[in-house]
Amino acid sequence: MAKVGIADTTFARYDMGKAAIDEIKRNSSVKIERYTVPGIKDLPVACKKLIDERHCDIVMALGMPGSKPVDKTCAHEASMGIIICQLMTNKHIIEVFVHEDEAPDGRELAALMDKRAREHALNVVRLLFDQRSLERQAGTGQRQGYEDVGPARI
Amino acid sequence: MAKVGIADTTFARYDMGKAAIDEIKRNSSVKIERYTVPGIKDLPVACKKLIDERHCDIVMALGMPGSKPVDKTCAHEASMGIIICQLMTNKHIIEVFVHEDEAPDGRELAALMDKRAREHALNVVRLLFDQRSLERQAGTGQRQGYEDVGPARI
Amino acid sequence: MAKVGIADTTFARYDMGKAAIDEIKRNSSVKIERYTVPGIKDLPVACKKLIDERHCDIVMALGMPGSKPVDKTCAHEASMGIIICQLMTNKHIIEVFVHEDEAPDGRELAALMDKRAREHALNVVRLLFDQRSLERQAGTGQRQGYEDVGPARI
Amino acid sequence: MAKVGIADTTFARYDMGKAAIDEIKRNSSVKIERYTVPGIKDLPVACKKLIDERHCDIVMALGMPGSKPVDKTCAHEASMGIIICQLMTNKHIIEVFVHEDEAPDGRELAALMDKRAREHALNVVRLLFDQRSLERQAGTGQRQGYEDVGPARI
Amino acid sequence: MAKVGIADTTFARYDMGKAAIDEIKRNSSVKIERYTVPGIKDLPVACKKLIDERHCDIVMALGMPGSKPVDKTCAHEASMGIIICQLMTNKHIIEVFVHEDEAPDGRELAALMDKRAREHALNVVRLLFDQRSLERQAGTGQRQGYEDVGPARI
Repeated sequence: MAKVGIADTTFARYDMGKAAIDEIKRNSSVKIERYTVPGIKDLPVACKKLIDERHCDIVMALGMPGSKPVDKTCAHEASMGIIICQLMTNKHIIEVFVHEDEAPDGRELAALMDKRAREHALNVVRLLFDQRSLERQAGTGQRQGYEDVGPARI
Repeated sequence: MAKVGIADTTFARYDMGKAAIDEIKRNSSVKIERYTVPGIKDLPVACKKLIDERHCDIVMALGMPGSKPVDKTCAHEASMGIIICQLMTNKHIIEVFVHEDEAPDGRELAALMDKRAREHALNVVRLLFDQRSLERQAGTGQRQGYEDVGPARI
Repeated sequence: MAKVGIADTTFARYDMGKAAIDEIKRNSSVKIERYTVPGIKDLPVACKKLIDERHCDIVMALGMPGSKPVDKTCAHEASMGIIICQLMTNKHIIEVFVHEDEAPDGRELAALMDKRAREHALNVVRLLFDQRSLERQAGTGQRQGYEDVGPARI
Repeated sequence: MAKVGIADTTFARYDMGKAAIDEIKRNSSVKIERYTVPGIKDLPVACKKLIDERHCDIVMALGMPGSKPVDKTCAHEASMGIIICQLMTNKHIIEVFVHEDEAPDGRELAALMDKRAREHALNVVRLLFDQRSLERQAGTGQRQGYEDVGPARI
Repeated sequence: MAKVGIADTTFARYDMGKAAIDEIKRNSSVKIERYTVPGIKDLPVACKKLIDERHCDIVMALGMPGSKPVDKTCAHEASMGIIICQLMTNKHIIEVFVHEDEAPDGRELAALMDKRAREHALNVVRLLFDQRSLERQAGTGQRQGYEDVGPARI
């Protein structure tokens, strides 16, 4: 049975890990390994450990970068680490970051975090079980958390 | 027979993968392996898997970074990952990124994406079968998607 | 017995290492290995040596980036190194950076450095001995050094 | 016989590779391996292949980043890749980048590209055959392409 | 006998390598290996070669980034390479960079370069022979080249 790792943080202001797990379970039969760390800069090694030590086939890295410039730098560093981790392991890590300043208030922020986590959870299921469905969506302007933009036409 | 990997995204608003495959097939006899992922940050490991697991000799990484600052950061992270992936594998990955804000509207954007994908597809064919033709073009101001700038002269 | 590495600097203006060690010892029985280096850019290899040569199970990297733009760049470089080090070793390195310009004067700076070091020391204890407690705090807006922000609700 | 790799691009607007090869041949007896790629982001793996597959002892990476912000980012990514490649191979790669906006017009641009390529070609010869001559120039404000600045004195 | 590598550049406007060697020899009995390269971006691999090929136990990387934005980017790239090199080798590389615009004129620049090189040379001696002395200075606001800032107090 495929194993999906869920790496998330105590820093984030909404439990995206729970939303992602719920969505994955609704749409597939997989084993879940969850690993919660303090902040987004702890996510890369959490993902690495989920892959190397808990043998996950794919991982979701869920985090909420803050709104200050230093938080943007942290997000960049975490993202680079997540990309390097994928190259070291040949496993996908689907990064689900919602920046705190993407939403005007806590209510919309939580809703966005829930929606993006769920939509990326479906991408995880597709990468595991139905890569052809992604190929059929190639170049069609898909978005996660916001409405799809759709394709541009010549 | 040489094998070319095509890594592209569902985020992009034009099917550059299809354009690239069409152009490669018109100009050479190679096997194509296609791998579509959600976004540009998923491209580095997709390229790595195309090389390591599907044994591609060269890969095209096609993506459309959005126009927001965070999208520029994502593009930078993806590019760094693509460069590191090449160093790990000793295989070329031709990055074909068209920034959403390079064109004033969807129609021109799609046209630019089609043109750049096709012109870089020719570079892939040259790297595989005719490296001398690239050497003959050294320092001549070639561009992909836009008109060539041409050489500067002392 | 678990071994915790403490990497810190002579550049910082408060002895965060001492505060972290005090807090760890109050809350667990572990062996401490301390390694003080000149500046934050020396921290990544100090952490690597604590893990590889002194066999630490987890490391805290404590530093105080200065307030000039070049200091921000140094902090970014150190953070990238700390993330790469974690990926190479599969060990957590909890980065505790307090930027000199986070506080208006020396007194508040020292207080913030003490508080953040101690709160992250508790995260180290949780990562070592009680990962479930972190999972229970997932998505609840925890902060270190400042008051917790708390969760956002839909 | 020592082997020097010359990696250059079709994007550049002057044939720096030719200038570098001419200068190297005037000043030493070495074998040259040339490898032309489309753009500067293709240079890191080209250098890696010149070292690993064509057994070069040292490589020159010649490129002309454009003048737009995205081009500056590309140059940064290529430079990081070139540095990482050197660390992976323990071989020098002398980066010769001339930014398109370093010169006011095509004529001066070409002249600068010619001069910088030639002066760095001499550095390659020194690194291969006369490291002491570099040591004698330590801290003396040498420049390539522009006039030397000379040393500062207490 | 311990071996200290000195990597420096012909680009710098003061012979920091000579100052560092002088200071190290006044304060310890070690063997010195010197390696001068053209610019700061050549320093990471020079350090790697000093460690891998000339068996240095620790290295100083001395450079003077210029004052233009492109020079700041070069410094960042060199610093990242130096950090990665340390992680690959488990050896310290003490980076001694003096930015050309840290001083108002050549005379003060040279003085600053001399002072910072010498003060970091003492850090090298401490890392090799007296790590406890660094631990005693933890969190005390030490600076190299400028006056120490001293500790902040709660």
